[in-house]
Amino acid sequence: MGLIVQKYGGSSVADAASIKRVAKRIAEAKRAGDDVVVVVSAMGDTTDELIELANQITPLPPSREMDILLTAGERISMSLLAMAIANLGVEAQSFTGQQAGVLTDDVHGRARIIDVRASRIRQALDGGAVAIVAGFQGVNEQTNDVTTLGRGGSDTTAVALAAALRADVCEIYTDVDGVFSADPRIVPSARKLDRITYEEMLDMAASGAKVLMLRCVEYARRNQVPIHVRSSFSGHVGTLVTDEVVEGESMEQPIISGVAHDRSEAKVTVVGVPDVPGTAAQIFEVVAAADVNIDMIVQNVSAAKTGLTDISFTLPAADGQKATAALAVAQDRIGFESVQYDDTIGKLSLIGAGMKSHPGVSAKLFGALRDAGINIEMISTSEIRVSVITRSDQLDDAVRAVHTAFGLDSSEGEAVVYGGTGR
Amino acid sequence: MGLIVQKYGGSSVADAASIKRVAKRIAEAKRAGDDVVVVVSAMGDTTDELIELANQITPLPPSREMDILLTAGERISMSLLAMAIANLGVEAQSFTGQQAGVLTDDVHGRARIIDVRASRIRQALDGGAVAIVAGFQGVNEQTNDVTTLGRGGSDTTAVALAAALRADVCEIYTDVDGVFSADPRIVPSARKLDRITYEEMLDMAASGAKVLMLRCVEYARRNQVPIHVRSSFSGHVGTLVTDEVVEGESMEQPIISGVAHDRSEAKVTVVGVPDVPGTAAQIFEVVAAADVNIDMIVQNVSAAKTGLTDISFTLPAADGQKATAALAVAQDRIGFESVQYDDTIGKLSLIGAGMKSHPGVSAKLFGALRDAGINIEMISTSEIRVSVITRSDQLDDAVRAVHTAFGLDSSEGEAVVYGGTGR
Repeated sequence: MGLIVQKYGGSSVADAASIKRVAKRIAEAKRAGDDVVVVVSAMGDTTDELIELANQITPLPPSREMDILLTAGERISMSLLAMAIANLGVEAQSFTGQQAGVLTDDVHGRARIIDVRASRIRQALDGGAVAIVAGFQGVNEQTNDVTTLGRGGSDTTAVALAAALRADVCEIYTDVDGVFSADPRIVPSARKLDRITYEEMLDMAASGAKVLMLRCVEYARRNQVPIHVRSSFSGHVGTLVTDEVVEGESMEQPIISGVAHDRSEAKVTVVGVPDVPGTAAQIFEVVAAADVNIDMIVQNVSAAKTGLTDISFTLPAADGQKATAALAVAQDRIGFESVQYDDTIGKLSLIGAGMKSHPGVSAKLFGALRDAGINIEMISTSEIRVSVITRSDQLDDAVRAVHTAFGLDSSEGEAVVYGGTGR
Repeated sequence: MGLIVQKYGGSSVADAASIKRVAKRIAEAKRAGDDVVVVVSAMGDTTDELIELANQITPLPPSREMDILLTAGERISMSLLAMAIANLGVEAQSFTGQQAGVLTDDVHGRARIIDVRASRIRQALDGGAVAIVAGFQGVNEQTNDVTTLGRGGSDTTAVALAAALRADVCEIYTDVDGVFSADPRIVPSARKLDRITYEEMLDMAASGAKVLMLRCVEYARRNQVPIHVRSSFSGHVGTLVTDEVVEGESMEQPIISGVAHDRSEAKVTVVGVPDVPGTAAQIFEVVAAADVNIDMIVQNVSAAKTGLTDISFTLPAADGQKATAALAVAQDRIGFESVQYDDTIGKLSLIGAGMKSHPGVSAKLFGALRDAGINIEMISTSEIRVSVITRSDQLDDAVRAVHTAFGLDSSEGEAVVYGGTGR
């Protein structure tokens, strides 16, 4: 007998019929003998509808009130789900973030979990009940104010509860069958991965894969919580995210796990920067002060002029306005010539823990893109990832070409081990 | 500078436009120099929609979960209202029942308030903010579980907060201009009352007037909280519910304040009851055990048979099934002949603190009904109220006839003082 944490997203509980279907699955897990904790998001479009209501009231809703408003959504879904489970003859109790002991800091809208004191959940489980917990929300213990965890918050709630309760697994139910080697909408031959390491999943999430949020994977890795990403619409086994090497399985990992892509970034180029020590630091201090996270950075000697250089960096397109405005203010002080902004870029990332020990991955990647006629504008690498920036309208072609080149297409079976020279 | 508690019902905050309108009124009250606490119900039909959702899930929703579900409604309205007020440049913070310190017993669905520890509200007021509080909800301190107060719960929340904060007045905003001498939909010439005593208001509420719930008036009387019932759609002064006799005003109260009516009751007649001591007690024990509140009781010697009697009583029609089923089970033991059930009755009540010292009110009432050709089936009186049961389809005529007979029609000015003999 184990302890399972299950998390269901908004599309899994979109209406009464969906809630009943999910309830059946939960009741089965409970009847199979496990203790079950369920984290649930708001039904379907509830959160968007509440945001729309707030926008009808004011262009600038105070963040404390916004958090109270949005958490109404999980309150509705969690109580309905508890009712549906009770209706199947299995005891169930729902708990708000506060009742579940999810303590956070006081940053409304994107609070961080600082502790999970799940004694009430433990008590409910010991009493034989399924515990349903509102995802995405917590409470600031100092002020007893409701907070929300921001995007992907329900996944984080699930992993945090799994860690606090020392659950055997945290099952994240979604509308796809698991983590794929590429987005199946772009690469129809993409394969579902049976397992993937935390590290790889982190790089996938950071590179635009939407199935799990970065923050939730970080939390899972830090606390060694195995995540099982699977579909709430089928009974299929999904993708296991873990560190473990299971005995009996091949120790030979495939080099490449998948190809991620991201169209949500933009590129800023600061042109004609004085090529003296400290200027780059000044530029990125200005951007950081505007609360903008940057991703890739490239610096080139300016072709035309001596003593000047160009600095390009990528950032979430949503922050483009903020960053360019902040740079404009600092232009005279820093002494660069101009700022160029381009939001028609795409990012392709090749991810695989196996590439650590296999050189030549980058070369093969660049070759595949060249053969497909795709120009590379920026490059960035980490131990288990290579990312390139392309034109946005060439990104789909790039993903397909790379997916094929690395033998990831499902018709070819397991990914081939590529050995070459010069990464 | 005083402290005002305002309560807005669901129709006053039905949509974004209504919420903004109400916000303006609240901001004005605050700018006029008073401390303002606002209690708010769920928007429009939200509560009904949530109940409908629950019914789609299960015919028997657990009451704990039902309470969590329903309280989502006030969470939405209160946060939106706080945003709307903030948008007018007035600081506002919203508070759940728990945050506002509304402690209740553990009877989900119709919890009773056992204490109000409003330190957080006091703190918000001291900090210069308007405090918005979710109506209808509290928390069971022992288990930290959310409870709801049942029908009219938001009014009770408002009065309870007004009592705890020693507010100068509790303003109950509704969609009518105040308490009327009769339902204006039935009696177009009904007059708005400027003031009414707690006692009269209690009898009005108990007799079917829907403007304030019995329980809220009881709470106000016990704690001497003046209630001002007024419209959220106009600036008119409404009806003041209080015990006070204001100096300078006439000490001469009108005999009759108003005519209330109620079509929600039914009549049960237990036929052929053995006329021996203790049988009536047995019958009402059975009904009480079924958790049914009865209203009027009449016992007659059975016309047809000696040694037998008929007992009639009225009860909420919603409880009719429960009561007759319980009686059927007990029939052999008690030994009555049959049970008759009639839900086509109406109740008319004449209410006025002044009737205590003016005999002849009942006689005039019966005369007016006789002149209008209306048959009286049951009669019940209290110190300041006379109620009669008529056919349901004659009730409107009865209300109009009595309203006119007692000089309550607005064209006639103030109610005439009636002195007669033999109440």
